[in-house]
Amino acid sequence: MRIIILAAGKGVRMKSRSPKVLHPVCGKPMLLWVIEAVQGLSERVCVVLGHSAEQVKQVLPSHVEVRIQNEQLGTAHAVMSAQDFINPDEDVMILYGDMPLLKKETLMKVVDQHKNDENCVTIISTTMADPTGYGRIVRDSAGKFLKIVEETEASDEEKMIREINTGIYVFKGRALLETLPRIKPDNTKGEYYLTDAVNMLDRVGIHHVSENEQFFGVNDRVQLAVAQKLKQREILERLMLNGVTVVDPDSTYVEADVEIGCDTVLHPMTFLLGKTKIGEECVIGPMARIENCSVGNRVRIISSDCVGATIEDDVSVGPFARLREGTVLKSNVKIGNFVEVKNSKIGSRSKAQHLAYLGDATIGEDVNVGAGTITCNFDGKKKNPTFIEDGAFVGSNSCLIAPVKIGKGAFIAAGSVITEDVPEWSLAIARSRQTVKPGWVIKKREES
Amino acid sequence: MRIIILAAGKGVRMKSRSPKVLHPVCGKPMLLWVIEAVQGLSERVCVVLGHSAEQVKQVLPSHVEVRIQNEQLGTAHAVMSAQDFINPDEDVMILYGDMPLLKKETLMKVVDQHKNDENCVTIISTTMADPTGYGRIVRDSAGKFLKIVEETEASDEEKMIREINTGIYVFKGRALLETLPRIKPDNTKGEYYLTDAVNMLDRVGIHHVSENEQFFGVNDRVQLAVAQKLKQREILERLMLNGVTVVDPDSTYVEADVEIGCDTVLHPMTFLLGKTKIGEECVIGPMARIENCSVGNRVRIISSDCVGATIEDDVSVGPFARLREGTVLKSNVKIGNFVEVKNSKIGSRSKAQHLAYLGDATIGEDVNVGAGTITCNFDGKKKNPTFIEDGAFVGSNSCLIAPVKIGKGAFIAAGSVITEDVPEWSLAIARSRQTVKPGWVIKKREES
Amino acid sequence: MRIIILAAGKGVRMKSRSPKVLHPVCGKPMLLWVIEAVQGLSERVCVVLGHSAEQVKQVLPSHVEVRIQNEQLGTAHAVMSAQDFINPDEDVMILYGDMPLLKKETLMKVVDQHKNDENCVTIISTTMADPTGYGRIVRDSAGKFLKIVEETEASDEEKMIREINTGIYVFKGRALLETLPRIKPDNTKGEYYLTDAVNMLDRVGIHHVSENEQFFGVNDRVQLAVAQKLKQREILERLMLNGVTVVDPDSTYVEADVEIGCDTVLHPMTFLLGKTKIGEECVIGPMARIENCSVGNRVRIISSDCVGATIEDDVSVGPFARLREGTVLKSNVKIGNFVEVKNSKIGSRSKAQHLAYLGDATIGEDVNVGAGTITCNFDGKKKNPTFIEDGAFVGSNSCLIAPVKIGKGAFIAAGSVITEDVPEWSLAIARSRQTVKPGWVIKKREES
Repeated sequence: MRIIILAAGKGVRMKSRSPKVLHPVCGKPMLLWVIEAVQGLSERVCVVLGHSAEQVKQVLPSHVEVRIQNEQLGTAHAVMSAQDFINPDEDVMILYGDMPLLKKETLMKVVDQHKNDENCVTIISTTMADPTGYGRIVRDSAGKFLKIVEETEASDEEKMIREINTGIYVFKGRALLETLPRIKPDNTKGEYYLTDAVNMLDRVGIHHVSENEQFFGVNDRVQLAVAQKLKQREILERLMLNGVTVVDPDSTYVEADVEIGCDTVLHPMTFLLGKTKIGEECVIGPMARIENCSVGNRVRIISSDCVGATIEDDVSVGPFARLREGTVLKSNVKIGNFVEVKNSKIGSRSKAQHLAYLGDATIGEDVNVGAGTITCNFDGKKKNPTFIEDGAFVGSNSCLIAPVKIGKGAFIAAGSVITEDVPEWSLAIARSRQTVKPGWVIKKREES
Repeated sequence: MRIIILAAGKGVRMKSRSPKVLHPVCGKPMLLWVIEAVQGLSERVCVVLGHSAEQVKQVLPSHVEVRIQNEQLGTAHAVMSAQDFINPDEDVMILYGDMPLLKKETLMKVVDQHKNDENCVTIISTTMADPTGYGRIVRDSAGKFLKIVEETEASDEEKMIREINTGIYVFKGRALLETLPRIKPDNTKGEYYLTDAVNMLDRVGIHHVSENEQFFGVNDRVQLAVAQKLKQREILERLMLNGVTVVDPDSTYVEADVEIGCDTVLHPMTFLLGKTKIGEECVIGPMARIENCSVGNRVRIISSDCVGATIEDDVSVGPFARLREGTVLKSNVKIGNFVEVKNSKIGSRSKAQHLAYLGDATIGEDVNVGAGTITCNFDGKKKNPTFIEDGAFVGSNSCLIAPVKIGKGAFIAAGSVITEDVPEWSLAIARSRQTVKPGWVIKKREES
Repeated sequence: MRIIILAAGKGVRMKSRSPKVLHPVCGKPMLLWVIEAVQGLSERVCVVLGHSAEQVKQVLPSHVEVRIQNEQLGTAHAVMSAQDFINPDEDVMILYGDMPLLKKETLMKVVDQHKNDENCVTIISTTMADPTGYGRIVRDSAGKFLKIVEETEASDEEKMIREINTGIYVFKGRALLETLPRIKPDNTKGEYYLTDAVNMLDRVGIHHVSENEQFFGVNDRVQLAVAQKLKQREILERLMLNGVTVVDPDSTYVEADVEIGCDTVLHPMTFLLGKTKIGEECVIGPMARIENCSVGNRVRIISSDCVGATIEDDVSVGPFARLREGTVLKSNVKIGNFVEVKNSKIGSRSKAQHLAYLGDATIGEDVNVGAGTITCNFDGKKKNPTFIEDGAFVGSNSCLIAPVKIGKGAFIAAGSVITEDVPEWSLAIARSRQTVKPGWVIKKREES
C-alpha cells in the first residue's frame, strides 16, 4: 500500500506566516502527528505540498516523499499532483495533514476491511451530532453505499443524515488512476473533488467509526486549541492509567514523548516537554517547566524552570530555581530558591539553597554553597571553570573568580572575593575589616 | 433614543462590601461592560443607583447621568426614579447593570425592529433549556405576544414554555410614562414590576434572540465566575481568529483592551492586563503576568512579572524576571533569572542575566551586567541615578553606589563596591586581597 | 448504629505502591473523606482493611476500629471479616472507602428513613444516564423493591433500567448476621456478594438519591482526577457563596480546611493548603502557593511560595518571594522579589524588597533591608541569630555575619561585611577603597 497525505492548503483562516500543517499540537507539528499515525502501515508515504513547501520539507522525516501542487484546485487536483506516486497494482490511502488526532488503529482497521472486501474504494465515515457542512453518506435500504452528497447539493431529507464522509479513503491504485482524469470541476468553486471519484466507482465500501474526535480537522486557531486539548487529554489519560497521578489534567501539559514512572505526582501548571524522562515517586510542580531533562526517582521539583539537566535520585529543586543546559545534579543534592545552575556538575548531598549562580562549575560531594555565592565565570571574553572539592564550605555572598579551585574541606569566609586557588582544609578570606563611626547617623541628621 | 440601566440592587448574595455592579469581569466592572454595549446607540445614558451610589459614580464615564432609587421596590419603581429622564417623544431602552455579557449587535437589532414595527414596546426574549424561575412569553396561535407570565403565576401548561423574558425592553417614552403610574404592587413581594407595564400595553413586539448566554445575569460569585469565563472565552476567540495562538484558552487571561499581533503564541497562565500591547511572533508564557506594557515583535517573556514596561523587538525576559514601572528595554536586550529592573532604560544588546537589581539606571548599548550586580539607588533618603555607558563590563556581585557613572568601555572588577565615577576604558577595583590560613579547618576541628 | 467501611481492595487499576484509599483528593486521603462523612452518625466506626493495612492504620483517627480481610473474596466476605463488630440489636451501615464524594446529609436521610420504615435493610439507589456495569434495582408495579440484578445476569429489559444500586446499605444488625452465612459464591468470580444478602431479605426499603455524583467511586487515576475536580468544585462553591471571589475556579486549588474572609480575591493558580487561614479583602495570586499560613486582612501575595508563615494586616509579599517556616511578618511589611525569609520575625513597616536572604533574624520596625542583603546564619556547624533594631538601614549587598546585632537607627554602608555588633545610631562600614587604572581596558585589548 502507499499513502498520500494532502497538505498543500494555505490555511488562510489560521492567519499565519507559517503553513497550517506546521502549527504544533502538544509540541509536534500537526503533519507529523499524521505521518506518525501511518507509520507501520506502509513505507511509501507521500506528502502533497503547496504553499511554503520548503518550510514544510525541513521537518519531514527522510523517508517521506514530496509532490508539489502548484495551484489549490481541490482534493482530486491535489491527488493528481501525486499521480506518478500511485501504483496501479497497489492500494493507496488518502488522508489529510490537518487531522492531528487520527489514530493508527483506525487506519489499520480500514486497510484490513478494504483488503477483505475487495472494493474499488473504502471510505471512512463517522456520525456527527451536527453534520452541517459535511458530505453525507447516502445508503440504500440494505445499508449499501449509494453516494456521497455534499451539503450544498443535499435534499432536505439527505440533510437529515448524520453519517458523514471523513474524506479518508483507501483506493485500489488502478481504480483511482482510471477515475481521476474523469473528474470535472462542475461545481460553484470550479474545483476537482475526490468525492466525485468515489461516486463514479462501482464497488464502494464504508468503514464506519463511531469515535469521531479523531477526524477533527484544524482550520483556524480556535480549532487548533481544541485539537491541542483533545491530544493533551489523550496523552495524560495514558499516563494516568499507567500509574501517574495528574492532580488536574486540565492544567497539566505533557508532550508526547515524555516518559514518567509509577506513583509520580504531577501538580497543576507542570510542563513536561521534549525528551524528558521522569522516574518514580517524584513530585513535580505546581508550576514547573521541564524540558529535555532526565530525572531520577523521588525527586521534587517545584516552581522551577529546568532545561537539559540530568537529575539523579532524591534531589530537591526549587521553588524558584533554574537549571540550564549541562546541569548534572547527583543524588540528594538540594537546589533552592533563586539559584541558577548552568553547565555544572554538583556532587551528592551538596547544597546551594539560596540566591546563587553556579556556572561552568564542578562541585564535589557534601559541599555547602552559601547564599549569594556567585561563580564569576565570564571575564568579558570567555567562560572559565570553577572547581569546588568535596566537603568545602563556601560562605555567603562569596565571589569565586574563575578559573579557580577551592580545595577539599576548605572554608571560604562569607563576603570574600576569591581570586586565587584555595588549598584543601584552608581558610580563605578576602574582605575588609569593619569600622564603626559612633553617632554618625545623628550627626548626619543634624547636618541636613 | 435614551437608555436607562438599572443598577440599584444591593446584590445581597454577593456577600460583599462592594456594590454588585462594580465587581469586575475580565478586569472591568460589570456595569461598564453594559455601558460599553450601549455606546453608539444613544448619547443619553442614565444609570439608576441605590446602594453605594457614591462608589459607583466614581467609575462612571462622564457622559452618564445618574438617578437615585432610595428604596428597592422593584424594576418599575427603579424606572420611576428616572422618570424625569424619560422623554415622551423618544424611545427608551431599559436594561440591567448585572448583565456584563450583553452584545451591542443584539441591542442594535432590537432598536431597529422597534423602529420599524412602531410598537409601544419591544421586548427581548430568548429560549432556555431550563426556563425555571424566568417569566414566560405567552403567544397566541399566530405567534403574537399575549402576555408575560411570572413563574409563580404560571399554569402548568405555561410552565412548559421555554421562551422567556430577558427583562430588556425598548419602550416608546410616552407609552412608558403613561403606564408607569398604573402599575400596582399587587404581588407577594409588594413590588412594582416592569412586566406589568408590558402586559398593560397594546402593541407589544417580541425580538427573539437564540444565543442566550448574553442575558446571563450575575447574582452571586459563582455566577460571577461563570460570566468571567464566558467573557474571557469571547476575548480569546476574537484573538485566535485574528492569528494569535492560545495554547490553552482555559488557562489564559487576557483583558478586553489588550492588542496582540499575528503569530504570537500565548502559553498557559499568561495574564495580559490593562493597556498592554504585544507585537507579532512573540512567545509569551507560560506563567507571565504583563500589565500595561508595550511589547515589540519577536519578544520572549517567560515566568516573569512585568508592569508598565516598554520592551522593544527581539528582547528576551525571564524566567523569573521582574520589570517594574518605567523600564525601557531596547532591542535585543536580555534580562535573565532573578533580575529586577525598575525605572531604568537599558540599551540595545545589553544583558543582565542573573540575580541583579537595576533601579533608576540608564544603561547604554552592549553593556554586560554581571550576576549579583546591584545599583544601590537608595541612600535612606532619596533615590539616586546610575549611569553605565556603552560597552561597559560590570563584574559579578558589584555594588554601584548611586549617584555614580561608569564610563564607556570601563571594566568593573567582580566583587567591587563602586563609590566614585569610573572614567571610560578604565578598570575600577574595590575589594580586599585574599589571605589564606592553611590547615585552619583542621585546627578548628581539633579545637572543638 | 454502627458503621462498616469496606476498604480492603488492592486497587490494582491504580497501579500504585500506595493502597487505593490513601490516594489524596484535595489533600486528604479518600478514606478520610468517607470517615468524615459518617462523623456524627455513630461513634462506632470500623474499617475493613486488607492490602497495606499497616499503612492505612497510620492515618486513621483513633476512634476508628479495624478488621482485617485476608483474602479479597467479595463485599459480603469483607463484611464477614467484621462480623464480631456487628451488634444484632443495632443497625449497621455499610459503605466504601473509595467514595470520597459521599455527603453526610445523604447518609443521615437514609438512616432516618430506615428507622421510620422498620425494614430489614434500606439500600441507597440512584439514577444513571448510562447504567452499564451497575446492578439494577428491579421494582414491582407498585414501585416496591423486587430485587437487585447484576449487569451480567440482567435480561435485556432489565438492562434498560437506569435506577442502580450504589452498594450502600443500612441493615438491621440481626438481619445481616442471619443472612451473611447463607451467601454462596455461586457466580463466575466465585465471590461473596452483599447484594445477595439484600435479595434474601424480606423487607427491603429503597432510598433514592437523585444527585448521583456523590456515589462516584475511584478505581483508577483518571477517576481520581475526576473526584478531585468535583470535590474541588464543591469547596470553591462554598467559598464563593460566602463572599470570596474566585476568578477562575478551574485553576484554583483550595483544600478543605482552609478558611477565607469576605471580599478576598483568589487569582488563578492559587494553592491554599493545609490549615491556612486568610483574612478579608486580600488579593492572593496569581501563582501563589500558601500552606499552613495565617494571613491577616488586606494582604497581597503574588507569585510566591509561603509555608508556615504568620502574616499580619496590610502586608505585601512578592512577586517571587518565599516565606518559610517560622516567618512572622507584622503589619505593613513589604517582602519583594527574590527575597527568602526563614524563621524570622519582621516588625511593622519594615521592608526587604529585593534579592535578600533573612534567616533566623529578628528585625524591628521601620527597618530598610537593602537589595542583596544576606544574613549569614550558618557557620558550617550551627545556625546563629541576627538582630536588627528599629529604624536601622542595611545598605545593599551587605553580609551580616551572625550572631550579630545592628543597633537602633544604625546605618550599614552598602557592600559591607558586618562581623561585629553595630551600636545604635552608628555607621558601620567594611569595604575596600576604590582604585582606578585609567586606560586599562585599552591596554589589555592591545596586549591580546
